[in-house]
Amino acid sequence: MRAIMAALVLAALAAAQGAGAQQPPRTAGPADPKLIEELVAANRILAMEGVVDGMGHVSVRHNRDPNRYLISLARAPELVTAEDIAEYDLDSNPVVPPSRRQYSERYIHGEIYKARPDVIAVVHNHSPALIPFGVSKVPLRAVTHSGGFFAEPVPVWEPRQAFGMTDMLVRNAALGRSLAQSLGSHAAVLMRGHGVAVVGPSLQHVVGRSIYLEVGAKLQAQAMALGGTVNYLDTEEGRKIEARRDYIRSWELWKRKAMGR
Amino acid sequence: MRAIMAALVLAALAAAQGAGAQQPPRTAGPADPKLIEELVAANRILAMEGVVDGMGHVSVRHNRDPNRYLISLARAPELVTAEDIAEYDLDSNPVVPPSRRQYSERYIHGEIYKARPDVIAVVHNHSPALIPFGVSKVPLRAVTHSGGFFAEPVPVWEPRQAFGMTDMLVRNAALGRSLAQSLGSHAAVLMRGHGVAVVGPSLQHVVGRSIYLEVGAKLQAQAMALGGTVNYLDTEEGRKIEARRDYIRSWELWKRKAMGR
Amino acid sequence: MRAIMAALVLAALAAAQGAGAQQPPRTAGPADPKLIEELVAANRILAMEGVVDGMGHVSVRHNRDPNRYLISLARAPELVTAEDIAEYDLDSNPVVPPSRRQYSERYIHGEIYKARPDVIAVVHNHSPALIPFGVSKVPLRAVTHSGGFFAEPVPVWEPRQAFGMTDMLVRNAALGRSLAQSLGSHAAVLMRGHGVAVVGPSLQHVVGRSIYLEVGAKLQAQAMALGGTVNYLDTEEGRKIEARRDYIRSWELWKRKAMGR
Amino acid sequence: MRAIMAALVLAALAAAQGAGAQQPPRTAGPADPKLIEELVAANRILAMEGVVDGMGHVSVRHNRDPNRYLISLARAPELVTAEDIAEYDLDSNPVVPPSRRQYSERYIHGEIYKARPDVIAVVHNHSPALIPFGVSKVPLRAVTHSGGFFAEPVPVWEPRQAFGMTDMLVRNAALGRSLAQSLGSHAAVLMRGHGVAVVGPSLQHVVGRSIYLEVGAKLQAQAMALGGTVNYLDTEEGRKIEARRDYIRSWELWKRKAMGR
Repeated sequence: MRAIMAALVLAALAAAQGAGAQQPPRTAGPADPKLIEELVAANRILAMEGVVDGMGHVSVRHNRDPNRYLISLARAPELVTAEDIAEYDLDSNPVVPPSRRQYSERYIHGEIYKARPDVIAVVHNHSPALIPFGVSKVPLRAVTHSGGFFAEPVPVWEPRQAFGMTDMLVRNAALGRSLAQSLGSHAAVLMRGHGVAVVGPSLQHVVGRSIYLEVGAKLQAQAMALGGTVNYLDTEEGRKIEARRDYIRSWELWKRKAMGR
Repeated sequence: MRAIMAALVLAALAAAQGAGAQQPPRTAGPADPKLIEELVAANRILAMEGVVDGMGHVSVRHNRDPNRYLISLARAPELVTAEDIAEYDLDSNPVVPPSRRQYSERYIHGEIYKARPDVIAVVHNHSPALIPFGVSKVPLRAVTHSGGFFAEPVPVWEPRQAFGMTDMLVRNAALGRSLAQSLGSHAAVLMRGHGVAVVGPSLQHVVGRSIYLEVGAKLQAQAMALGGTVNYLDTEEGRKIEARRDYIRSWELWKRKAMGR
Repeated sequence: MRAIMAALVLAALAAAQGAGAQQPPRTAGPADPKLIEELVAANRILAMEGVVDGMGHVSVRHNRDPNRYLISLARAPELVTAEDIAEYDLDSNPVVPPSRRQYSERYIHGEIYKARPDVIAVVHNHSPALIPFGVSKVPLRAVTHSGGFFAEPVPVWEPRQAFGMTDMLVRNAALGRSLAQSLGSHAAVLMRGHGVAVVGPSLQHVVGRSIYLEVGAKLQAQAMALGGTVNYLDTEEGRKIEARRDYIRSWELWKRKAMGR
Repeated sequence: MRAIMAALVLAALAAAQGAGAQQPPRTAGPADPKLIEELVAANRILAMEGVVDGMGHVSVRHNRDPNRYLISLARAPELVTAEDIAEYDLDSNPVVPPSRRQYSERYIHGEIYKARPDVIAVVHNHSPALIPFGVSKVPLRAVTHSGGFFAEPVPVWEPRQAFGMTDMLVRNAALGRSLAQSLGSHAAVLMRGHGVAVVGPSLQHVVGRSIYLEVGAKLQAQAMALGGTVNYLDTEEGRKIEARRDYIRSWELWKRKAMGR
């Protein structure tokens, strides 16, 4: 099956070249196998932790070129293997004509990488506890140490403002740019009635942040339900926490469990 | 055991014919094994995803005849195998006298197939997050992209209106017709104090819709609990979403997990 | 280990007889192995479904004598095997001096069997969604078909009324009798700040009822949280439902999963 | 890998001694292997029960010396093995220079052992249902028998009071002492926006208490959500319950499941 797919890809590529069609962008060369392995692990971990179901995706910048990023072709994150990983330029064009469907919302990744040079990895997910905060007036904001990266409330992107009634998907560059603007310098941006985009300086960070955004949203909702005022994390506490944050200890656990070792 | 069952069925059939009893409806012939396989997978997926427990059922129209449908004999969906699948006409009579108990609520399926020629598959379930919306005045309505098919609120069927106090089960054609009327042209209808019937143009759709109705009900309840107004999905957003909706990517995941491959 | 245990039991028994100590009650003879198998399954199912954790217990009347009941010696239900099952009279005295700790709250079972000749099986559990209804003024009451057996609100037993401040455990016959009085003719009685006792005409019924009480309590709490009035199951609907209720289809599923087959 | 680690430790130790550096505290000698086994089990049980995720830790006093305690080096509790366990004095200095990262918050343990001679084991966790009570004005307080040890409300430690804006971690003795003061004679102390410290007379107690604090927090929140007044456990009931409390039956279950036997 994969062999047939590969043949089809070659044929399509040859046809495109023969017809003088637009050339795909140049590859940055083979990615570090260790990075691919971490990207596959990131997919599996997000599924294991319930951050993604069949939908959602995670990408990372190419280790050889900050103008390229790596992401799976269309596949449920829990099923992603190294063979599914494809390379894209920041306009979200694949460097190899894809052998099958691509994520239609890959523009989330490409446009954020353009706007945020500090970002190394991006997750898009529909993490359930976050959705209510995207459709209400209540800002999503950390109540706990694990949420140091959103001690300042998470902004909400409303596609209706600039685009009116859409099918809600970020299926082109204009939508992606608009989303990246709402993200600003934050670690995450809620997408009204849809999900979230999470960014960070490593795959470990975006996976950890995705997990603890979900945890934090549940905690905030529960704290509010108890009634009275909620004692939120102070932004200075958040800064101090994040200055030392890594996810090494958790990553060891998550990766071993998600990869079945 | 199954051989004995089959013999009993043949004996019963012979006896019925010998006595000049009412003939069972004619079969449409053997169903596509691929369709049976998908129907078994649908049963398992609904159980895996917590949409059904021991109760609930899923059916699909016969591939050879729109006036026949396929559904398991009485068995918990998680245990259903190809050998459990039986064929019914739209009056919900089995084409072979059943070797054991049938679903007493199969009329949900038959009467909806009669009323809705566009419907190819039907699920009846007691999905937990839906029930509260069936016993309150709050309309169940999508807040998120995954709920595009219920951007318009889900109607509620109240059997007390036409039938008074019953045992709540849709155990005859009259009850089924009444339910189908409440369904109208919607993708689902809540059954007060009981569950839901979900319809769609394929098994993938009814399974996906059943799963995302449950998800959506949870999200709506959580969004309401945050207080203030909820920013629901617009019906035009819903239409645009559903125009392109398929469940291919999720189905690959669900089927592989539910069938243990 | 079990052999040593058995020897110790025999020695203890001999010593008791030799000393002219109070005789243990006479056994009704060996119980039907099929009944023991179902009782073990009931223990495992209750654990699998989250109705019990390490604590809680289930009993059934002896098939040879309604004045004897069968229940495990002290052990977490998930670990109970046929070898753990012991026989008691309705005063909750074991017919064989126990080889190890007994459930201190076995009086729940004995006193209910005395007061309710129609009851064949009893469960005591700390099912989490029930507890809040035992410590609030809100009556626990079915909103759905699966709760037909508590269409009338579940009574609440308050040990403080007759016994003042206790350690909350039903560790003698007086407490058990008081609980049985609160139960009256109902299918279940909440124990304030503690749990519930559930009764029924078979092991299948008490297991099914325990599971659907938990489900029903969650549904009621969620329906109330939506705001406005809740449309409860009518008591006549409950009666009609229960007149035909069995748990055959669910039991097949539960038993196969809980026993790993 | 472990051999290399061990060699590095020896080298570091030799270097420290050679340089006349501060001597590590003296070891109390090898701990009882049975105690180590129980400590490893405690780690795994806390993970299995969802009390800890990748973070959190559990310690126990050394069986040979109440001025020493045993705790893992930095590792997710679910992955801890006997080889990870290290020995510390009550100033939280390791008796052997650590071969890798230590828990930065081990001062929670050391300072509590200093302040509370009755305490034999300590857990620090971020158990999710507890967090909301640490950031609201609602006291966490038992509603049920299983929470006899917090019939009196759980105190809340606020690091801002004495230390201003921090990174929230108890990373030195001063913070640990402050926490121990807030704990007082209680069985647990909430840490605002962070988690909890739980203490007890045995590993079984701190594990059981950690599990039932989480259970109890959920139950209290649900009882409050039903509206009206909540009928809390009386402190005298709590005292009577705890006078007889052990976790023998649950421990058998938890340990067998967590250790896969």
